[in-house]
Amino acid sequence: MTSPRGRFVLSTLLAVAVAASAALAQSAAPLSPVGLRAAALRDEALAGNRALEIVRSLTVEVGPRSAGSPGDAAAVAWALRTLGGMSFDRVWSEKVMVPHWVRGSAEGAILTPHPQTVVLVALGGSVATPAAGLEAPVVMVDSLEALDALDTGQVAGKLVFFNGRMARTRDGSGYGQAVAPRGRGPAAVAKKGGIGMLLRSVGTRLDRLPHTGATRYEEGVPRIPAAALSGPDADLLEAQVASGKPVKFRLLLTSEALAEAESANVLAEVRGRDEGGEIVLLACHLDSWDLGHGALDDGAGCAIVIEAARRIGELAQPPRRTIRILLAANEEFGLSGARAYATAHQDEIGRHAIAAEADMGAGKVYRFSTHVGADALTTMAEIGRLLSPLGVEMGAGNDASGGADLIPLVQARVPVADLDQDASTYFDHHHSANDTFDKIVPEELTQAVAAYVTFAYLAAELPGPFGPAPEVAPR
Amino acid sequence: MTSPRGRFVLSTLLAVAVAASAALAQSAAPLSPVGLRAAALRDEALAGNRALEIVRSLTVEVGPRSAGSPGDAAAVAWALRTLGGMSFDRVWSEKVMVPHWVRGSAEGAILTPHPQTVVLVALGGSVATPAAGLEAPVVMVDSLEALDALDTGQVAGKLVFFNGRMARTRDGSGYGQAVAPRGRGPAAVAKKGGIGMLLRSVGTRLDRLPHTGATRYEEGVPRIPAAALSGPDADLLEAQVASGKPVKFRLLLTSEALAEAESANVLAEVRGRDEGGEIVLLACHLDSWDLGHGALDDGAGCAIVIEAARRIGELAQPPRRTIRILLAANEEFGLSGARAYATAHQDEIGRHAIAAEADMGAGKVYRFSTHVGADALTTMAEIGRLLSPLGVEMGAGNDASGGADLIPLVQARVPVADLDQDASTYFDHHHSANDTFDKIVPEELTQAVAAYVTFAYLAAELPGPFGPAPEVAPR
Repeated sequence: MTSPRGRFVLSTLLAVAVAASAALAQSAAPLSPVGLRAAALRDEALAGNRALEIVRSLTVEVGPRSAGSPGDAAAVAWALRTLGGMSFDRVWSEKVMVPHWVRGSAEGAILTPHPQTVVLVALGGSVATPAAGLEAPVVMVDSLEALDALDTGQVAGKLVFFNGRMARTRDGSGYGQAVAPRGRGPAAVAKKGGIGMLLRSVGTRLDRLPHTGATRYEEGVPRIPAAALSGPDADLLEAQVASGKPVKFRLLLTSEALAEAESANVLAEVRGRDEGGEIVLLACHLDSWDLGHGALDDGAGCAIVIEAARRIGELAQPPRRTIRILLAANEEFGLSGARAYATAHQDEIGRHAIAAEADMGAGKVYRFSTHVGADALTTMAEIGRLLSPLGVEMGAGNDASGGADLIPLVQARVPVADLDQDASTYFDHHHSANDTFDKIVPEELTQAVAAYVTFAYLAAELPGPFGPAPEVAPR
Repeated sequence: MTSPRGRFVLSTLLAVAVAASAALAQSAAPLSPVGLRAAALRDEALAGNRALEIVRSLTVEVGPRSAGSPGDAAAVAWALRTLGGMSFDRVWSEKVMVPHWVRGSAEGAILTPHPQTVVLVALGGSVATPAAGLEAPVVMVDSLEALDALDTGQVAGKLVFFNGRMARTRDGSGYGQAVAPRGRGPAAVAKKGGIGMLLRSVGTRLDRLPHTGATRYEEGVPRIPAAALSGPDADLLEAQVASGKPVKFRLLLTSEALAEAESANVLAEVRGRDEGGEIVLLACHLDSWDLGHGALDDGAGCAIVIEAARRIGELAQPPRRTIRILLAANEEFGLSGARAYATAHQDEIGRHAIAAEADMGAGKVYRFSTHVGADALTTMAEIGRLLSPLGVEMGAGNDASGGADLIPLVQARVPVADLDQDASTYFDHHHSANDTFDKIVPEELTQAVAAYVTFAYLAAELPGPFGPAPEVAPR
């Protein structure tokens, strides 16, 4: 796969180079000294490959690192070791308590009409089934709304199979639509008397590799076990249901919630030359799901922000504002690191000039959107101008959302930017065992580094303030 | 993936249609009545989709069906039921005794330098490890030749990791080259004192799904356990070996060889109108490996030959020769069905006019090759002429090999034809859990049916004899 994709990337980069020349030629105003330095950083980053080596190192030396696991602790040690060998003024960790759920084993089988075993995994946080497993008839629906339309009598005592499919899109919006039953399904099923939930994996490629992800329970509603089937296994179950004969299914999960465990946010800084102590925050999350190696989610994101900041740290003159990177603990299973950061840094939240998070894999950045104060939009457009030679368009609307780990900062009206990455293939492997190093296309990752270093440098140098950002509804 | 491949197929079919018109226009001689009927069968087959429904039925109602398993028996019942409902003059089974190996569980882990679990499966026929597993240093080689170059001291007491990669080719030739260590590796390793074998999966796509396949032991050589790692896990092990630090690995297999079991060849015939009783044999194999659903290997092949023969059975006038289909038992694990067929039908082997086997997935036929008597080459070229509108080229050399289940017939100098299918993506999923129904591109399967029905009808009508074929070296 690498070879044809490599050719694709090469031709894409050539197209970008042509577009770059055209954009620069068309641009009326000459670049300022800051703009020239940003352009140089950008173009040097395009020739680098250190981000790839960072992900390789993380996946080879650590691999899976779900919250509270031995891999989680190994990842924190890896990050301190790796960042400690780079051009940062300060590298440190901050303790975070995280939930510690263990997957255990998972077995599934269609018992009637045509007996076959199926490949499935527990959703993150699922309770176990009884030790002997449970056997029940299956009722198939496409969505939470379709479940709502069923009577309790159609659901009680049954396993509900959510069979909706996720759409492939560049912006990943298909995920938000498809993922609703993963989180809210168990409570919705239990309210109608259902005793378990099966889910077609939320993903965009048909492999025998189920996609996990966090599920949620509601207070006062029975907690029922929930599992995701691989796409082909969901096809199989769908076909047996479509036969019109009664389908009986056996599910066995041995998942378990252990006591909270200690983890850590890992941080590093390139200290700014300005006394005001303003901060440009670049975030990612260090944890991953347990099935894969977390190369895309979010090893790539961490490599992007580490490498962007490292390159700025190598400059002879420090930037005006501090560049801080946050490798957050436990994003996947409840944003523990994000909350801990906001609490620990409450006193300096007002000094966060702007923040961005890389958490959409290793694809190219194709759009730059912001959520800043109205006075800062001209400055953001200037950043957009420096990004455009990379093939990055300017997003309209000033309604960037920031990444999941920035939610507490967004609530505090810290300005954020989204450097949206092409997510067309991201959900092929996301949260599955297939999230491994080989899925990264090196040239795409390098382009993303170039976009982040351009953004970060300009955000650290251009005149502010960029905020406060408009208020958003609580999430 | 379906959507872009669908577009590819559509454009390919358009190209084929254009080529077809051109070929027909260029063809000097008008078609004979037999040729016209073959062309009609071919073009009607292109409009059908029953082969797809046959594979769907087999994968939904049976799924995995490795020799001796409950699925094997279910597949025989499925075949008798399915063929019994079609336009055949006779449907029957013939008892075949088959080996019965069960996979058990498989665990693998890199213990040093960077502990990580890896995804692997036992090779077919592998012995178990000790119940507690075995732990040993890893020595990595690329090939059997590279192993030969090592001293016994470099191998004794170790796990040998064969890390050679398979090349993607249209004709599948990369498989023959890459598969050698899978079969011969355990004996070669054991002769140098090695205590186990690890193999990079023989496949062409990097998924966390290992590819199994039969391995062999030699008399008088210790039988050591052998497992295949998924591609990404082989990458991981390779990277840890490349670190230069000693790599220690833990392997646990619980595989077991049980007593021989009863299975069956399933056969069906469209009886020819000629009293001579000559037979055109179309073969496939009904068994599959246990990891996937055997949609490609060899559900598709069986669907192709069933549907090609069924269409001929629907004709108002039976063909001159009998069309017989053979759904062979246990191809994967020792060609039991092929041998049993040759033995049971010894008296009528001379009446086999020609044979062909479909066992290369669901891709389009791109080449027609033969292994026939010299006098029959003109007739074979006439068949090639009727195939060319499908985009099928004529293979040179008269050195077709026939499928694995035809080996005993080839040894007996029965003429054979190869309708070579495009195998570019076949080895992405071959022998892995990913061999499922969704991997079939319907238009490609339909084209293969059209090619087989054209071949079979002409082979049943055109004047013979086609043999005896040239002698081949014993295999």
